Amino acid sequence: MRDVAIIGVGLMKWGELWKKSLRDIFVEAALNAIDDAKIDKIDSMYIGCMSGGLFVGQEHLGSMLADYLGQKNIPATRVESACASGGLAVKTAFLEVASGMSNIVLAGGVEKMTDVDGGGATAALATAADQEYEVFNGVTFPGLYAMIARAHMDKYKTTREQLAKVSVKNHKNGFDNPHAQYQMKINVDNVLNSVMVADPLRILDCSPITDGAAALIMCDLETAKSISKKQPIKIIGIGHATDTIALHSRKDITTLGSTVKAAQQAYKMANVQPKDINVAEVHDCFTIAEIVVSEDIGFFEKGKGGNAVDEGRTEVDGDFPINPSGGLKSKGHPVGATGVAQVIEIVNQLRGEAGKRQVKNAKIGLTQNMGGSGGSSIIHILKGEE
Amino acid sequence: MRDVAIIGVGLMKWGELWKKSLRDIFVEAALNAIDDAKIDKIDSMYIGCMSGGLFVGQEHLGSMLADYLGQKNIPATRVESACASGGLAVKTAFLEVASGMSNIVLAGGVEKMTDVDGGGATAALATAADQEYEVFNGVTFPGLYAMIARAHMDKYKTTREQLAKVSVKNHKNGFDNPHAQYQMKINVDNVLNSVMVADPLRILDCSPITDGAAALIMCDLETAKSISKKQPIKIIGIGHATDTIALHSRKDITTLGSTVKAAQQAYKMANVQPKDINVAEVHDCFTIAEIVVSEDIGFFEKGKGGNAVDEGRTEVDGDFPINPSGGLKSKGHPVGATGVAQVIEIVNQLRGEAGKRQVKNAKIGLTQNMGGSGGSSIIHILKGEE
Repeated sequence: MRDVAIIGVGLMKWGELWKKSLRDIFVEAALNAIDDAKIDKIDSMYIGCMSGGLFVGQEHLGSMLADYLGQKNIPATRVESACASGGLAVKTAFLEVASGMSNIVLAGGVEKMTDVDGGGATAALATAADQEYEVFNGVTFPGLYAMIARAHMDKYKTTREQLAKVSVKNHKNGFDNPHAQYQMKINVDNVLNSVMVADPLRILDCSPITDGAAALIMCDLETAKSISKKQPIKIIGIGHATDTIALHSRKDITTLGSTVKAAQQAYKMANVQPKDINVAEVHDCFTIAEIVVSEDIGFFEKGKGGNAVDEGRTEVDGDFPINPSGGLKSKGHPVGATGVAQVIEIVNQLRGEAGKRQVKNAKIGLTQNMGGSGGSSIIHILKGEE
Repeated sequence: MRDVAIIGVGLMKWGELWKKSLRDIFVEAALNAIDDAKIDKIDSMYIGCMSGGLFVGQEHLGSMLADYLGQKNIPATRVESACASGGLAVKTAFLEVASGMSNIVLAGGVEKMTDVDGGGATAALATAADQEYEVFNGVTFPGLYAMIARAHMDKYKTTREQLAKVSVKNHKNGFDNPHAQYQMKINVDNVLNSVMVADPLRILDCSPITDGAAALIMCDLETAKSISKKQPIKIIGIGHATDTIALHSRKDITTLGSTVKAAQQAYKMANVQPKDINVAEVHDCFTIAEIVVSEDIGFFEKGKGGNAVDEGRTEVDGDFPINPSGGLKSKGHPVGATGVAQVIEIVNQLRGEAGKRQVKNAKIGLTQNMGGSGGSSIIHILKGEE
């Protein structure tokens, strides 16, 4: 397997982008990545998108987006694993380069979520849960994560305030991220007094509905060294695992089995341990998710994720910084793009280009991207080439 | 890049399967593939599906299908390129094995198309065309292929009868295929007198709406030789290319640029020429498509595909046998499964297990799977290990 490195990254301002279409926002991010890599031609591309069909009535994105990017005729592959579609695009693009099939590959993600009819976004997202056994009975994602939160609070004494502090931290970080949908600071009282969505989760515990895209350029390490003016960032570990799609089929809903397994694989492939990770981007679709994931990737003992938040350990200057980008909560969550944007933030951190959000001495970073209520998880570990 | 071989294939009876769900039919085909390979555990899987969202309201198929197949926790990836999603599953699974990331990988495809509301199937399929510039103006796929047919008839004097003969041949072949949706023989008059869909294409020129699934097991050649009792069938060439998603953006609509380019790549990788191919399965979503593709993959001179049909050259006992399985026309076209089933037919042919459809002395076979009106094409070339 060839070594693979990232040589360019591209984002655009996320939000409710009424005047831009899916193809517009993808091309904007992809051109930024191509510019950053200082190349003009790619060999192949992978696109993470959860549901072009349900959100904008457009499938077959590979064909359409390759053409609109000015790269007509290249092989283009759309991959989907619900909200982990972006992470999957990074993994599958990695395999195309690692295998030797292509040298320079774009991994992108896109979701145009606000064009859907009223109420339709939550219904479209619910197709990531088990349609016949969960959704048919009325449960959607805020409800599923509320059940995870209740179980975690009951078993580990995690508090309502700890959940709120995750949101406050991520908004504080996102305030300094020019691409974030919500560049605004909030406090614990704001969260605790915001509108109830699914008890105990309130609106400020939930990531928003977002239009957005993200893209990065990867290539084999040899090519990276010869063409890149910036430090190539290597993908040194990948983990990918699934769990039952339905939450009710699991023995214990205070842990995410797919994340635990994907983390084990990624640490093994990278030959590192949790303590070696300097910065992480994890899938905080709801505040409780960040706490559960921070335990399941081995940063903190099981049940102690809430305490770690209290102690400030996940702040940008803590010993396990999580979501310096602002996370899904502040940055926004265009589901197919999220996993790619997580990797982009780690590239920025390892390059030392994260501005006010910069984690000091960041050498090794990790991303955790998750589909549904943890039915799938994809983890990447990155390290700068020395 | 490691050599990769197919060691097991599985299908199920395709048709209007009112009593079976998407998960039922996928598991049925996948278990047949696992049985054929005589294994009990797979390392990873890839699933081609065009639109679980629009057809049955279910995305996140990787998580759901891995669990229902009894393979909980394995990495599972859904890929989409409209009607070429199945071919894409085979390509991406190949890369996972070729790269060394996994040893034993399942490539499957599934589509449950008949559960959709009345008229909804054609609308769902139309999301493979350009939603903003084609579908908005009222054109769907029968209309797009009708325009290709008119242009080809005008430029190359291809006849209405030649189109009909493609359908007659494929139904004759499919009559001997126990998995085919329509095991019935038809004649040229039946086609010429069937209901008009989009002039000049009649209903018997069109592939049907189908529920169906297909799966195969591939692994590195070394593992294949050690565990497989049957002859491993190697994937020796892969081509994958795109074209503009909109038909009107192309200079010449009598040729499919993505198929031309994908064929060039696949022949080069396999180091073979069109004359070396003993049997092919190609994407006859409409009769005109088989004629155009037979030229674009280099079997016949451009414009002579219709004459080749007249001369019987594409029959099972011709010099370029095409669609011995019955093709999409007779076998059915569950869009995500089609590309996988094409590869399965070639495996059966190269193993000498195709029964009454067997092409004599089949040593090298080719599949051509296509998305939309040729916005994407994926070609595989297979050869038995000697």
